[in-house]
Order: sequence, then C-alpha cells, then structure tokens
Amino acid sequence: MSLPSSVTVHAPATIANVGCGFDVLGLCLTAPYDTVRLTRREQPGLVIHHLDDYDLPTDPSRNVAGAALLALLRAVPEPLGFEVEITKGIRPGSGIGSSAASAAGAVVAANALLGNRFSHKELIDMAMYGEAVASGVRHADNIAPAICGGFTLVRAVTPALDVLALPAPPLWVAVVHPQFEVKTKEARAVLPTSVPLALAVRQWANVGGLVAGFLTQDNALIARALEDYIVEPARASLIPGLGDAKRLAMAAGALGGGISGSGPSIFMLNKDEATARAAAEALGSVYRKMGIDFHLHVGPIASQGARVVNF
Amino acid sequence: MSLPSSVTVHAPATIANVGCGFDVLGLCLTAPYDTVRLTRREQPGLVIHHLDDYDLPTDPSRNVAGAALLALLRAVPEPLGFEVEITKGIRPGSGIGSSAASAAGAVVAANALLGNRFSHKELIDMAMYGEAVASGVRHADNIAPAICGGFTLVRAVTPALDVLALPAPPLWVAVVHPQFEVKTKEARAVLPTSVPLALAVRQWANVGGLVAGFLTQDNALIARALEDYIVEPARASLIPGLGDAKRLAMAAGALGGGISGSGPSIFMLNKDEATARAAAEALGSVYRKMGIDFHLHVGPIASQGARVVNF
Repeated sequence: MSLPSSVTVHAPATIANVGCGFDVLGLCLTAPYDTVRLTRREQPGLVIHHLDDYDLPTDPSRNVAGAALLALLRAVPEPLGFEVEITKGIRPGSGIGSSAASAAGAVVAANALLGNRFSHKELIDMAMYGEAVASGVRHADNIAPAICGGFTLVRAVTPALDVLALPAPPLWVAVVHPQFEVKTKEARAVLPTSVPLALAVRQWANVGGLVAGFLTQDNALIARALEDYIVEPARASLIPGLGDAKRLAMAAGALGGGISGSGPSIFMLNKDEATARAAAEALGSVYRKMGIDFHLHVGPIASQGARVVNF
Repeated sequence: MSLPSSVTVHAPATIANVGCGFDVLGLCLTAPYDTVRLTRREQPGLVIHHLDDYDLPTDPSRNVAGAALLALLRAVPEPLGFEVEITKGIRPGSGIGSSAASAAGAVVAANALLGNRFSHKELIDMAMYGEAVASGVRHADNIAPAICGGFTLVRAVTPALDVLALPAPPLWVAVVHPQFEVKTKEARAVLPTSVPLALAVRQWANVGGLVAGFLTQDNALIARALEDYIVEPARASLIPGLGDAKRLAMAAGALGGGISGSGPSIFMLNKDEATARAAAEALGSVYRKMGIDFHLHVGPIASQGARVVNF
C-alpha cells in the first residue's frame, strides 16, 4: 500500500488547567480548530505557508508547527520534506491552545503521511517543541488533549513524559474569548513561587476530586471540585469581568469553570447543550456591557483530538 | 421491631495519606481492628472500659471513642446512656489509624443501636471529635476509610465536610509497624509551612494520577503516582529504615508505598496476596537487621469499614 502524498488535519482548541488542575489537566474541544495541510515534497526540509491574517513567522524554527515538525524530522532516519499550509481557526493569544493546535495538527498530519509510525506519546513529545517556540516552555497541558482528545492528565514531564488520556464525561463547554491580550509571560509572572502547604492540600484534594468526578461522571462533584484556590486568584486581576462572567454563567446553570489556560478566555462546563448555550450568553453579556468585543464557542468535550479529515 | 440493646463492632486500621495524598486520601484495611461493644444503659451518659493494656483514659471527654459518642449524643433528642467496652487490636501510635478505629467503631455501634439513623457522613463528622482528642486536629483522613471502607478522598473539611467513598482496586497491603514512637505533633512540626509551586504541581499531578489509577485499576499508573514529593521527604528522618524498607519491598514486587499516616508504620501496595507477603517479609527484614522489634500486617484493601459483627 503506497502512502498518500498529502493530508489535511483539523486540530482543535483545548482548555488547559481546567479549574484546579494548573499545568496538568486538559480538555479537548470540537471547535474552533486550526486546519493543517501537509504535502510531501522532493527536497528535504520544511516550507511553511500561513493562509490566515495573523502574520505569524514562517521560518520553520520560529513557527510552532515548524518546530514540532523539525522534532519529528529528527526522529525519522530518511530525509523528508513537507510543504505546510496552516489556516488558523483559533486566534493566537486566546488562551484556548492556539499554538498547541498548530503544533499538534502538524505532527498528526506528518504521522498520517508516514503510515502512523509514532504513538500519541511520541507525537506529544514532538509537538511540545512548538510550545517552546510559542511560550518558552515545553509544556504539554494543551498538546496532550489536542492530540489525545477527551480529558488528559499530564502526570509528569520529567524525567519522562507521562500523559494519561482518560474518558471524558459527556459535558458541554461554553467559552468566551474577550478581545484583550493577556501575555503568557505576564500570566506566569503573577503566580506565587511558593504556596502555603494547607492551600496546596486543598488544591490537590480538588484535583483528586475533579479526576474522580470526571471518571465517575458525577456532575455535582465536578462542580464542587473545579475551584482553583491558587492560580485563578493570582490571575483574576488580569481578566476584567471574570468574577461577573463566572457568577452569571453559574446562575444560568453552568457547573463551574474559570480561566482557560492563562486567559483571557473563560470556560464553563455544563451538563448539556442548552445549558452551555445559556452559559455562553451569560458570559457574553458581561463583555457586551463592558464594551469589550468577544467571541463565543459552544460545543461538547471532544472525544478525539487532531484528526485527518482528508487525504 | 425493637432495637437491640447491645452490639459488637469491628473497627479496622486504615492508611492515611497513601503516598502523595497528604491529609486527603485514605484506605481501609481488614486487620488489625479494634473491637467496640456498646450496651444501652438506663442512666444517660457514657461509661467506658478498656479491655486492653494500653492504659488509655476512660473519662469520656478524654477518650477518643467517648468524645465521638458525646458528639453523637448531642445529635439525638432523647437522653441516652451507653456502656462502652473497647478492646484495642490496633496499637496506639502505630500510624495506622488506631484512634480513628475506636472513634469510628463507637459511633457505628451506637448508630446500629439507634436503627441506623445517621449517614456515613454524619458519623464521620462525629468521629472526628475523637481525632481532636487524640491529636488536637479534627481530621478525617483515617476516619473516612474507617467508616466507609475502600478508598476515600476527603475533598474538603471546611466549610462543609465532603468525603468521597470510591471503589477500591483489588490490591493487597503490606504494613510494617516498627516499635518506635513518632509523635504526631513532631511529625507535623517537621512539615514545611509552604512549598514551591512547581513541587505542589507535581504533587497534585500525582494525586490526580493515583485517583485515576485506583478508579481504572491501572497498577502501573498507581506505582508511578504513589510518590510523595513533599511530606515523606520531610518526615523520612523520623523513620529510620524507611528508604531500605521501601527499596526491598519494591524489589520483592510491591507497586510502591510510603509512610502510613504520620508513621512509624510503613505500607506497601501489592497486586496480590503472594506479593504482599513477600513485601511484608522484605519490610520486616530491614528492622530485624536493625534490631528493632516490629509487627507485620498483610491483607486486602477492605471494601467495608467498621461493621457490626453481632448483636
């Protein structure tokens, strides 16, 4: 069987942290998504085109998809060349895994062209090089759900990557992306370098509770366990409207939520589509009132991550 | 149907913390156990007898079972009196929930005599008064598994008690109780008051991983996730032989383990009985070599906590 010479992949947005799970938990969305098309080329190396207006670098080592693919090329013995066309459906800087999507989509596409010789874990490891280009840190909390789908726990990055892909509950996610910028660097800078042990204990009780809630599909437990005692309080001042948005979305029936990744997007988990739509409307109403433009996204947690849509 | 006038309860030992889950995770053992016999008496109030040699206080307000029963008596409208006979099968100060067992056994026994009018959650809340007598802290990490059995997560104590009773995996536990004393107060004093955020993140990744490992019965994940980065390193110097004991038990096939509660007991989780027996032998060999007396306990994780054995 000959391998195809080109492939198109949809690579979805993701929610990192998921309330209490700073740096370790992630959820996969169905939309928005980036579209990554890879075509084999005769000459070794990468040529990258962006079919969008975000003016992102196309030098492979400075492009998130490029850096991920360079890691993949280092892992294959044969010299390979790809032409890469990226259409970003996820706005950079939105806090819903825009860079992770491009990096994940690129390595999933390349893997499809290579007969799927790499495991999810190997692809995550490669795609993390894209995150290093985007934020300076090789983190996996968006990459893992972007590749595995569902609900992921990055149990360890060092000494060895250990990612758990867990079945996600049938929840719906409402996301608001208010149109202001939160720099990941700034969002990192406001974090405490150390935390009181008593607070850390409360946080890991919630992480354990949220994992149990997801695995046993206990919505009441999920609602109680989502709360983040450490990171969200530190970052709340970077996200105007956060408190009101959460309050109104919960009044509309949402289970709970918080800052998506390092923001500015805010996510809320919901028991069904109707509640998610009501929660999204509530989230949007806060920013409409503040005169801040916003985008809304509503969809179920996606059981599948970046996937081939055609060859 | 008339209610019985006396009842005997077996109240088992428990493992608090369970590796990474300081102050929140707990497991129930089948043995050793305390035996608590309650008999209704005409006069209101409590009369406590200890049928063991530990010289524990029998003044109800200073006895762990007594303090728990006084909390129960405050919750019933009618004036009640109980004669309480306690035979401790769990040595006080062993680190496997000795005080929790007596407190849990007492309220479970009283509840049986009252037609089981209280929920597990209410009984936990009452039995925590016994812990306050024993250690000054109304903690639930041993009480919860002693009452619910299986594997428990104390998600919150304040503002409201939130205990998750989760199905336990079919693992076997090996415990060594070396015969030296670790005072709970001292074990608390060596803890850091604050921890680096990066280390707290690694710890809550493990708590999430361990909960997922237990719920999905993934022994390899359980083995990876048991590790405690924060509390055990601080307490290791209080438990001579800890490092060798863990190392040898793991060489004998144990999945992992650590200090039980605040020690000095050490627990190891194992995939089956034969491995648990080999691990126990390995644990014992370390203390035999050191010339320190010890007791060994081997048994499955118990699905049931304190239970009526006869009326």
